[in-house]
Amino acid sequence: MRATYMYGAGDVRVIDVPDPIVQQPTDAVVRVVLACVCGSDLHPYHSMPATPEGHSMGHEFLGVVEDVGSDVTTVAVGDLVIAPFAWSDNTCDFCREGLHTSCRHGGFWNANGVGGGQAEAVRVPLADGTLVAAPVGEDSPLLPSLLTLSDVYGTGFHAALRAGVNQRTTVTVIGDGAVGLMAVLSARQLGAEQIILMGRHPARTDLGVELGATDVVAERGAEGIARVRELTGGDGAHAVLEAVGHMPAYEQAVGVVRPGGVISRVGVPQYSSAPVGFGSLFGPNVTLTGGPAPARAYIERLMPAVLDGTVDPGRVFDSTVALDDVADGYRAMDARTSLKVLVRP
Amino acid sequence: MRATYMYGAGDVRVIDVPDPIVQQPTDAVVRVVLACVCGSDLHPYHSMPATPEGHSMGHEFLGVVEDVGSDVTTVAVGDLVIAPFAWSDNTCDFCREGLHTSCRHGGFWNANGVGGGQAEAVRVPLADGTLVAAPVGEDSPLLPSLLTLSDVYGTGFHAALRAGVNQRTTVTVIGDGAVGLMAVLSARQLGAEQIILMGRHPARTDLGVELGATDVVAERGAEGIARVRELTGGDGAHAVLEAVGHMPAYEQAVGVVRPGGVISRVGVPQYSSAPVGFGSLFGPNVTLTGGPAPARAYIERLMPAVLDGTVDPGRVFDSTVALDDVADGYRAMDARTSLKVLVRP
Repeated sequence: MRATYMYGAGDVRVIDVPDPIVQQPTDAVVRVVLACVCGSDLHPYHSMPATPEGHSMGHEFLGVVEDVGSDVTTVAVGDLVIAPFAWSDNTCDFCREGLHTSCRHGGFWNANGVGGGQAEAVRVPLADGTLVAAPVGEDSPLLPSLLTLSDVYGTGFHAALRAGVNQRTTVTVIGDGAVGLMAVLSARQLGAEQIILMGRHPARTDLGVELGATDVVAERGAEGIARVRELTGGDGAHAVLEAVGHMPAYEQAVGVVRPGGVISRVGVPQYSSAPVGFGSLFGPNVTLTGGPAPARAYIERLMPAVLDGTVDPGRVFDSTVALDDVADGYRAMDARTSLKVLVRP
Repeated sequence: MRATYMYGAGDVRVIDVPDPIVQQPTDAVVRVVLACVCGSDLHPYHSMPATPEGHSMGHEFLGVVEDVGSDVTTVAVGDLVIAPFAWSDNTCDFCREGLHTSCRHGGFWNANGVGGGQAEAVRVPLADGTLVAAPVGEDSPLLPSLLTLSDVYGTGFHAALRAGVNQRTTVTVIGDGAVGLMAVLSARQLGAEQIILMGRHPARTDLGVELGATDVVAERGAEGIARVRELTGGDGAHAVLEAVGHMPAYEQAVGVVRPGGVISRVGVPQYSSAPVGFGSLFGPNVTLTGGPAPARAYIERLMPAVLDGTVDPGRVFDSTVALDDVADGYRAMDARTSLKVLVRP
């Protein structure tokens, strides 16, 4: 089959690899119907050292079950299934606490002999725990929205949930990428009445307004902080959802959070240390939370509103490439000419 | 009157200053009956640059109201009152949210013309909001325990509360100083059944066991982390209460926290940046919280168990000095020959 590999910064290729097969009785093999390129794929796209073996790519996909191991009971051949960006047993204590990314028996795509979603098919370990069947066919117009449950929607929701967003919280979302926009949608669903979106790409922030943002702040740095404080009566926001991962976004978050408030990070941090001392987090009793979203934990909760059309998170996809053209998708997202790219094998 | 001033690292003197008087209609003047030296007083004791003016010291005291301004209604001359380590109006939105340390009209002792508690008397701004009357006389044997409500008990309680401690959480307390021991007591009161105290001063950790610690880990660094993990089935603790403020304590906290758990800091950080990236907090979805405790918020909640003898937090005081000998108290705490020193003017 064809699968996407990255061989170094900027070097994405689609190559032939062996077809995945069921190896364990708990495995399933899923033929990929829709995949996509993630903002976090751009981090290695910028910085990965050249490697002759390459790494398989993609951690967001949905598709049709083609084969299952003898122990698999919750999905069957022919089901259309959504795969979250981590695989997990959904039964251990961490999973029961909703922290599937720390599953005792789980793992991530593209590691330890498991492939990636930007491919024609994927072997899915612990299929019963990992996959969620969706009651639609592979020609459903809902597929792009359902695909967001793989990662970006669940990740935005995780940011909002961990920040304790509710009717009484003011919210600032930092970043107008797909995760930032899904954080806006999630904050709105959790009842927030003021949602300030910090971003400077009008096409994206316009979509953010349609998804629930009440204010847009295009300024950055001290000017951006001053603007958010002005919009929040001088105090800053109770909940700051940081959906970027770079240090300036962290600093922005510290600058706009209200005393006693929460900074909830879901952008993968591209730094290892950051200000947390008296002058940043400690003095004003600010809480720092977040991490890789247990997307699996949220699929059943978020899917009904997708199925009945209440929300349309698939609007974050603004272009589509064939699998063999996936490198064009990376280029478009890197150049910000595309917000998020669908990949159709 | 006599009052304690620090003139630089290691240089503590008791000097004559003008008697405090009511300046605002919302002020009270309190004659100090009991004060104490705080672990956080040792930070400037180690590092304060020499200054000819000196700084007044002390932020924990209780005493008898000697005079009140015309607007004061909740305390009266003759009342025995507890002063939390920050003064506040107790009516603004931050105070109503329980964040008195961010009060819109409040402040801290030893700043902006307000003196400190290691003195014969103190002018208390916003007396109605700041002071809490205790139904005891100035000869009550409960005074040391009531004095802990000024800071260390409320601070330990804040650590436990912010960490979400309850019956289902395993707890690790880092630091066997007075705040660490109060964090142990608080975690026990909030229902925790396993409380691991990290500390290496047997007299202190023995007291910690009496206050509720179920395990003591004297080891530090990698060895200490391994020991806590062993005691928690390999996973680490749900709630880590960090009551020190130095970087090794922070690193210890990161090492012993369970995925999805909380590090709650109440030791004043002596660092400005710290590890928060994928390998420390982000990857395992660890939450970092805490800050200066709104001690005022907890006085009414914690006082009944002190008054009825259910708890005896005053046991953290193991020596007493006269006000004129306060420098001896600093020396004893610095040398760790005393856990916490009472000061009797």
